[in-house]
Amino acid sequence: MTTENLERPRRINNPQAMRARILDVAADLFQRHGYNATSVHDVVRAAGATGGALHHHFATKKALGLAVIAERVGPEVDETAIQPVATASSAAAGIRAVFDGVADTLERNRAVTGCPLNNLALELSLADPDFREAVNEVFDRWRAALSFRLHADRPEMDASRAHDLATLVVASYSGAMAMAKASQSAEPLRACALQLETLLR
Amino acid sequence: MTTENLERPRRINNPQAMRARILDVAADLFQRHGYNATSVHDVVRAAGATGGALHHHFATKKALGLAVIAERVGPEVDETAIQPVATASSAAAGIRAVFDGVADTLERNRAVTGCPLNNLALELSLADPDFREAVNEVFDRWRAALSFRLHADRPEMDASRAHDLATLVVASYSGAMAMAKASQSAEPLRACALQLETLLR
Repeated sequence: MTTENLERPRRINNPQAMRARILDVAADLFQRHGYNATSVHDVVRAAGATGGALHHHFATKKALGLAVIAERVGPEVDETAIQPVATASSAAAGIRAVFDGVADTLERNRAVTGCPLNNLALELSLADPDFREAVNEVFDRWRAALSFRLHADRPEMDASRAHDLATLVVASYSGAMAMAKASQSAEPLRACALQLETLLR
Repeated sequence: MTTENLERPRRINNPQAMRARILDVAADLFQRHGYNATSVHDVVRAAGATGGALHHHFATKKALGLAVIAERVGPEVDETAIQPVATASSAAAGIRAVFDGVADTLERNRAVTGCPLNNLALELSLADPDFREAVNEVFDRWRAALSFRLHADRPEMDASRAHDLATLVVASYSGAMAMAKASQSAEPLRACALQLETLLR
């Protein structure tokens, strides 16, 4: 922080904190209720912001939605699904740990809200090409990281098989989250984790 | 058709046809835009119905949504995913055919709207326990049918493994449809079909 900043009134530092708070709140509401079912007013109210403050950072609801994908959903996928596989002892062990870790979290939280990427993928992919592209970019990064790791474990594996296996892992994760949400149970994730581990070993 | 029916004015036969038309139109709109983004007025207009006619058959939007799951989404899953596996030469061949068949359809239609079950599962499971239960019932029927077929092919297979494999198939189908929707490509379905076939043989 520079001296110049310190001399300004304290609220000068708030805009970035408010922007982050709006993103947190919007990500949570989109995740729990869906993008369409959440109004900009809902976000303003839950964030304790003003309409002006929200508009200052996000000119449109769509801009807010794209920022949620880029700055909240993408990093969450990196942290919960990509990094743990990259650093595990093997792709199989990492994938098992990711599925089981999410299943543990769901069981602790009691309510299964599903995978934010999947929720937005299904709700928004057809509504708008920019949303579709933003969501697809996250799916692609995830597949590429898994495929890279599978190939690193088994260099003899054909690149197209590594890519297809990575696709199966991402697809079954996404689908198991949808089934977990519908059954309000982590069981579909545990079942997939077990079968994928058998397949990958 | 009985003589009694023929003697009545022709419009007496319309209510059931109108009910079916409303369900078709609502299923299509929910699938393309989502349940929340579709208003009852959108359905009335697209069906060429009156508000009164819709209200006569479906007292609330929720009643319409539940009827779409029970009378359109469920039967579609039966027809496109359950029956073909039940009648195929093997579970592996049937599952491959289901994935490839959907991929072919997506490529013909050009636009991937995704799996109606999955779309509604993610949008509505948390919004309402009745929707959640209706969606879960379809997922469960699908898993049970696959598990039954896997077990019929290989009676030596442990029942819990058959159930888990069935879960993996349903999950990867659902997730691959989400990825297909985001990428507007059938490639994720083809990739999963290939890997599942290897796993199941």
